[in-house]
Parts: sequence; C-alpha cells; structure tokens
Amino acid sequence: MADKDLNELFLDTLKDIYYAEKQILKALPKMAKAANSDELRTAFEKHHDETEGQIERLEAIFELLGKPARGKKCDAIEGILDEGKEIMDEYADTAALDAGLLAAAQAVEHYEISRYGTLKAWAIKLDMTQAAKLLDQTLAEEKKTDDTLSKIAETAVNYEAAA
Amino acid sequence: MADKDLNELFLDTLKDIYYAEKQILKALPKMAKAANSDELRTAFEKHHDETEGQIERLEAIFELLGKPARGKKCDAIEGILDEGKEIMDEYADTAALDAGLLAAAQAVEHYEISRYGTLKAWAIKLDMTQAAKLLDQTLAEEKKTDDTLSKIAETAVNYEAAA
Repeated sequence: MADKDLNELFLDTLKDIYYAEKQILKALPKMAKAANSDELRTAFEKHHDETEGQIERLEAIFELLGKPARGKKCDAIEGILDEGKEIMDEYADTAALDAGLLAAAQAVEHYEISRYGTLKAWAIKLDMTQAAKLLDQTLAEEKKTDDTLSKIAETAVNYEAAA
Repeated sequence: MADKDLNELFLDTLKDIYYAEKQILKALPKMAKAANSDELRTAFEKHHDETEGQIERLEAIFELLGKPARGKKCDAIEGILDEGKEIMDEYADTAALDAGLLAAAQAVEHYEISRYGTLKAWAIKLDMTQAAKLLDQTLAEEKKTDDTLSKIAETAVNYEAAA
C-alpha cells in the first residue's frame, strides 16, 4: 500500500468543504434576495451568518493541523449550486420559485451533512478530539437548518399561482 | 406570477434524479471493483441492484404522469461522481482508498435523500398519492443504505497502512 493515508484524505476533504462553504456564503444572499416568502428569506439570511461561523471553525481545524486554510475546488458544490442558479433563472417570477429554492438549499445542506459526518468520523479515528468537537457543532447546525427548511416547505411556501 | 408551477418543477426534478440514478448505476460497479473491503464491495453490489429497482419506480411515476421517462443532465451528480473518481485515482492502492470510497458513496446517498425527500413532499402537495408512496419506498432504501455505509465506515474499513 502506498503512503497516502487517512490524514491526507482528512486534509483534502477539509479543503473541499472549506471551498464549498465559501461558495455557499456567496450564493446565500442571492437566494435570500430571490425568495418570495419572508420566512424563507429570513432562513437564508440566518444560515448566511451561521456559515461565517462554520468557516471560522474550519479555519480553527486547519490551525490545529498546523496547515494554512486553503480551499480546493469542489466539483460537487459547483454542480449543486449551478442547479440552484438554473432553478432561479427558469422559475423566476413563478409560483414554484420558493419550492425550487428550498429544494436547492436542501441539496446543499445534505452535501454538507455528508461531508461533516465523514470528517467527524475520521477525526475520531485519528484521535483529533478538538477537531471532532468543532465538526460535530457544525454538523448539528446543518441538520437543524435542514429541519427548518423542511418545516418551511411544509407550512410557509405558497404553491398556488397568484391570481 | 408566470404560469410555470409545481407540476413542472416536479417533472423537471424527476428528470434530474432519473439522470442521476442512471449515472450512479454506471459508477457503482467501478466503485465495487476498487473497494478493498469485502463488506464495502458487497454493499456497493447490493446498492447497484437496488438502484435498478429505484429506476423502475421512477419509470412508473413518469407513466403515472403520462410522460416519457427521460433524464435531464444533472450537474450535481456529475460533480459528486467526479469527486469520487478523483478519490479513486488519487488514493488508488493506498490504505485510505476505502474511506474515500465510503465518503463519495455517502455524498451520493445524501444527494438522493434530499431529492427524494423533496419529490415526496411535492407529490403529497400535488395529491399524487401513488407517486408519493413509490418515492417514499426509495427514500427509505436510500436512508438505510446511508446507515449501512456509516456502519461499514465504523467497523469494516481498515485505516492502517498495510505493512
């Protein structure tokens, strides 16, 4: 077996999600601006602020590793956000726009949940207790955001075309 | 508000996940072949068979809608699978390969969980009872697969470099 190991994979994946979070930070104000529902706009604005804290946690983990905080282009988040942009274009001024924005945001949340779940599991394997704790805090926030979005989809989005 | 509505968004998203499932069907045998752990290989093979059934369910929903079963290029799954390919290349013959494969597979599962969750919620809003039932069956399978992968990550993957 070659020398590349879980430490390297952990660092690569940390760079991937660091890049992803920075892209998400740029996308959220556009999504908030596009949303029709006040509740959805508020949820996007709140998650924007939360994302800033999540980026700081990632920077703290880079520091724990003694590595510079650097992103690595993440094709997955690019694809997920591109789909979100497409929805914003194709469904602009339609009754289904908010439903589409919610779907895009939940795809983003699930990508993050999978990445933070993986990173937390690896941090535990690698005996990185402090990093595992920081990753778990963000993982809990992402799951809560996904739940909030599900509730908004259920209650606050008007699916009927306006008269 | 323009005329595009939730029915159209439902159909667009159905085409998106139909395309995604077909790409996943092609990727899984490559991931199974690459896996070092027998348990991981078996899980990928089992999920390949399950994916065939999930594609049939999507085709049944197209039929319920009276629409031809057609995919629509899904940038998100392309990006997620590209990252998986990158891991397979960069970590080939390393001790961390299985961990990377698991992470890639869980990112795929979470994308599917988000899409099927969204489609099921919309099917309910649109009073498409039979479609909602089919989507719920797949959603349950995807969640179970994600749990299985988490368990394999916990127990069956050897993270130590071989001597």
